[in-house]
Amino acid sequence: MRLLGLDPGLQKTGWGVVESHGNRLTHVANGVVKSDSKKSLAERLVELYDGLTEVLAEWQPYSCAVEETFVNKNPTSTLKLGQARGIALLVPSQAGLLVAEYTPNHVKKSVVGAGHAAKEQVDAMVQILLPGVKINGPDAADALAVAICHAHHVQANANMGLGMKGVPR
Amino acid sequence: MRLLGLDPGLQKTGWGVVESHGNRLTHVANGVVKSDSKKSLAERLVELYDGLTEVLAEWQPYSCAVEETFVNKNPTSTLKLGQARGIALLVPSQAGLLVAEYTPNHVKKSVVGAGHAAKEQVDAMVQILLPGVKINGPDAADALAVAICHAHHVQANANMGLGMKGVPR
Repeated sequence: MRLLGLDPGLQKTGWGVVESHGNRLTHVANGVVKSDSKKSLAERLVELYDGLTEVLAEWQPYSCAVEETFVNKNPTSTLKLGQARGIALLVPSQAGLLVAEYTPNHVKKSVVGAGHAAKEQVDAMVQILLPGVKINGPDAADALAVAICHAHHVQANANMGLGMKGVPR
Repeated sequence: MRLLGLDPGLQKTGWGVVESHGNRLTHVANGVVKSDSKKSLAERLVELYDGLTEVLAEWQPYSCAVEETFVNKNPTSTLKLGQARGIALLVPSQAGLLVAEYTPNHVKKSVVGAGHAAKEQVDAMVQILLPGVKINGPDAADALAVAICHAHHVQANANMGLGMKGVPR
């Protein structure tokens, strides 16, 4: 089962695709969709939309998960992130995919085993869990971590006979 | 020239269309696109996307303006609003329209003449500026106010020979 993880951001939205066969996990692809900061906000959101639409068309995931945005103390940053996140949720849902959401702590706990793991530990574990992976920067690493977290959930649900029902949305 | 104003919100996104001929302004249509709070966030964003796409297809505006979201002290509300706002900016931009942005105070000043006018004053002025208008609730009223503000800007720019160049985006 092919799973897509997304780490939304206005400037860079990371994406990572993994393939899950039972308890086995393999890397498929990862990357970053960027928007041009010289363009207007509306045009940048179109760039993210188009980029994510391409990723979905190319990699055809079965299901998708998006990291829950860390609610910043700076409301302007939160608003910016919210706008990008809207696009990250919209595109897979428009394609008919179920979109799960996980908090950053949940992702860390699922990948490293501790909710307050450092970013470097998460990246190192992504490398271990997906041997041979070449990661296209920190946003793609975060997106792969989200995809791995989603794979663990989907697998746990499958083991309990829940299918996609028990996945948080 | 037909202009669309949008007042974004996850539950209700207000929209209003006005026609501007020189200094003359007439009402075309107004309404609200709703999302079902029982659905997942991703599905609700698709509902907003589809609703706004319909509004654009039906009323074919030449240009669009979106109210700048009031940055709330509650970061969770700001994030929610940001996600809805992302869709409100995306849809007209995807259709090739220029999308202007105005702060709530700017809209009030343009419609009532005072930046700190009460909501009721704005609604009353919308009724006066668009005689005979039947407004579909407060979100549609706000959206019409945004459309009127946009019309004033576009007209002022036309008078200065600026075209759409001087419109804030």
